[in-house]
Amino acid sequence: MATLVKKFGGSSVSTPENIHNVVDRVLHEKKPEDKIVIVVSAMGDSTDELLDLAQRVTTEMPKREMDVLLATGEQVSIALVAAAFCSKGHPAVSLTGFQAGIRTSDFHTKATITNVFAERVIRELANGKIVIVAGFQGLDQNGDITTLGRGGSDTTAVAIAAGINADYCEIYTDVDGVYSADPRIVAEAQKMQEITFGEMLELARLGAGVMQPRAVEYGEHNGVAIHVRSSFHEELGTIIREEYTVQEKNFVIRGVAHDTNVAKIAVKGVPDQPGIAYKLFSALANANVDVDMIIQSVRDIEGSIDILFTVTKTDLVEATSIVELLKEEMGGFTFDVGINVAKVSIVGAGMLGSPGIAAGMFGALADAKINIAAISTSEISVSCLIKESDVKAAVNAIHTHFFPK
Amino acid sequence: MATLVKKFGGSSVSTPENIHNVVDRVLHEKKPEDKIVIVVSAMGDSTDELLDLAQRVTTEMPKREMDVLLATGEQVSIALVAAAFCSKGHPAVSLTGFQAGIRTSDFHTKATITNVFAERVIRELANGKIVIVAGFQGLDQNGDITTLGRGGSDTTAVAIAAGINADYCEIYTDVDGVYSADPRIVAEAQKMQEITFGEMLELARLGAGVMQPRAVEYGEHNGVAIHVRSSFHEELGTIIREEYTVQEKNFVIRGVAHDTNVAKIAVKGVPDQPGIAYKLFSALANANVDVDMIIQSVRDIEGSIDILFTVTKTDLVEATSIVELLKEEMGGFTFDVGINVAKVSIVGAGMLGSPGIAAGMFGALADAKINIAAISTSEISVSCLIKESDVKAAVNAIHTHFFPK
Repeated sequence: MATLVKKFGGSSVSTPENIHNVVDRVLHEKKPEDKIVIVVSAMGDSTDELLDLAQRVTTEMPKREMDVLLATGEQVSIALVAAAFCSKGHPAVSLTGFQAGIRTSDFHTKATITNVFAERVIRELANGKIVIVAGFQGLDQNGDITTLGRGGSDTTAVAIAAGINADYCEIYTDVDGVYSADPRIVAEAQKMQEITFGEMLELARLGAGVMQPRAVEYGEHNGVAIHVRSSFHEELGTIIREEYTVQEKNFVIRGVAHDTNVAKIAVKGVPDQPGIAYKLFSALANANVDVDMIIQSVRDIEGSIDILFTVTKTDLVEATSIVELLKEEMGGFTFDVGINVAKVSIVGAGMLGSPGIAAGMFGALADAKINIAAISTSEISVSCLIKESDVKAAVNAIHTHFFPK
Repeated sequence: MATLVKKFGGSSVSTPENIHNVVDRVLHEKKPEDKIVIVVSAMGDSTDELLDLAQRVTTEMPKREMDVLLATGEQVSIALVAAAFCSKGHPAVSLTGFQAGIRTSDFHTKATITNVFAERVIRELANGKIVIVAGFQGLDQNGDITTLGRGGSDTTAVAIAAGINADYCEIYTDVDGVYSADPRIVAEAQKMQEITFGEMLELARLGAGVMQPRAVEYGEHNGVAIHVRSSFHEELGTIIREEYTVQEKNFVIRGVAHDTNVAKIAVKGVPDQPGIAYKLFSALANANVDVDMIIQSVRDIEGSIDILFTVTKTDLVEATSIVELLKEEMGGFTFDVGINVAKVSIVGAGMLGSPGIAAGMFGALADAKINIAAISTSEISVSCLIKESDVKAAVNAIHTHFFPK
């Protein structure tokens, strides 16, 4: 007997036919004594349709009301999925976020789960019901409906799994699991059986889009093993957990990630005085612009320095206008902006005790004649800034180096 | 300063444009200190769309899940209406049924309101907000979402009005108010300024479709004055209340109602023995068939009697099969069915102390050469069964008699 939480995304429940497919699969895999909670998102495009409707009423939808509106999407899904289970003779009951005991912060449209009161879910499971829970939504301390923002249904699933002490939280998705690199770029990319929370978080942060970081964090903090698997077939995927339970081929480097949502700003000829960098980066921080890599040149012969930093392409306009303002205010420096850049990274908790890993990465890039514009490191990762057009070659070169055939 | 609950139906909020019209009208009529609660139904055809979707998943949607599904309709409306108020600079907040404190029985799809915990609504009003409440829905004692069935939003509005001690509950509808007869049939029909709860309930029971009886009953039990008025213009409509506050022209008869959803069954040659009528009508009651008029013939010369009774056309098939079964079981009688019948009624609390009212009605019908097949009376009404094709002439003749120009 197992207690399982299974999360299906919007495309898995986009039509009545797909809903029946999900239900058939769950019933096919279910052992008689298994206790099953299903977490579902809104059907297919229904969220977009609700957003369109809101847009036609006002272009400035209050966030509180946006949450009231969007939460209806999952409520429709849960009712239909529960009904489909019942129509196949298996008792099921749907629960909205508030009924399932999901309590959140009051940061509307991007709330975080603060607590799960899972008594109702546990009671329904004990009564032999399959429990269908609306992902992405909860109730805040004011009694208001909230939504969790992007990837919120994954977090709901992990939170419910923690609340009912489930054996696994299974995330059904359009990929087979977590790969050693993006399989669309690296033909030899290998699916991992397992990966630790810390490595998964680092991969996600560095551009691997399989799981939302918040859901992984929630799993880490509550010790919920997360099984990322395909919604198309029944093969096992990748289990994200605290520690490895199986010995896989390569433990030093677990994955190669890349991120093309990167832009660089090079500030040149800044007077080499204390406080300049502070002024620049605090202005960026105040505007909520996340700065990733920062490289300060070694002292220049003319007594000035260069500073290169990266932001997401999404934040580039904002960042540029801040630097522009600072330039008007202080004078004395120039800057230029580059968007033809990308970041490649290696991630692995094992690199802590393995010298030469970073050198191996640089060597692989050098052999492929790829120039490195900047380097940054964390305890379990090394990242290089390169030209965007070099991404495919870079990821393949690094992957071949660390995952030889 | 007034505290008002205003209920708008699905057609009033069927499009973003209509939503803005409702909001403009409310803001136009609102005095600065007025406290306003708006109760809305689901947008236009959205309930039908949800029903279609359910039908595509299963033809046997569990009623509990049907309620979870249908409740999303009003939730979409309230978010958009609240957003529209905010977009015009007036603070507003939406509340679902459960947030507004609507507690109901657990009779899914046809729940009745058992309690209103209006603290949240009162608090939001005190904070200067216009409060938008989802009609038609509530929460039962199990924490499950329920819906109230047909006309449920009217009942929500009246219940909220009772909970916050509102001055009036205004029901905006596609008619101007309550008329002395159906204005589509009687050109001279007069709009009433006021009508009592008892008379309104009797009119509704006898076929006048302006208000759902349950909402009127709720108003009566809680002393909430209900103002039925047009959603198209700002003229006053009809106020349903405990007692008259103005002297109108005709107090004896308040209205002429008619109902064409009537069928008759004539059972002939029943042995004149005790218990036969009991057997017939208890069988009908067990099948939930509402019997309206019952006429038993005076003793027949051959020692048998005839019984004529009416049911709704909707229940006719069920009723016929019950009589058929009884005939097979008992034998000895024949029966025939008539659907070309209708009921015309007069309603007025004043008739209690005014003899000759019924005679006036019969005389008006006789003068118009309309045959009466059966008669039934209550304390405040008289009804006649006539041919369906005579309805228009009958209603006009009776109206002309009691409402002379």
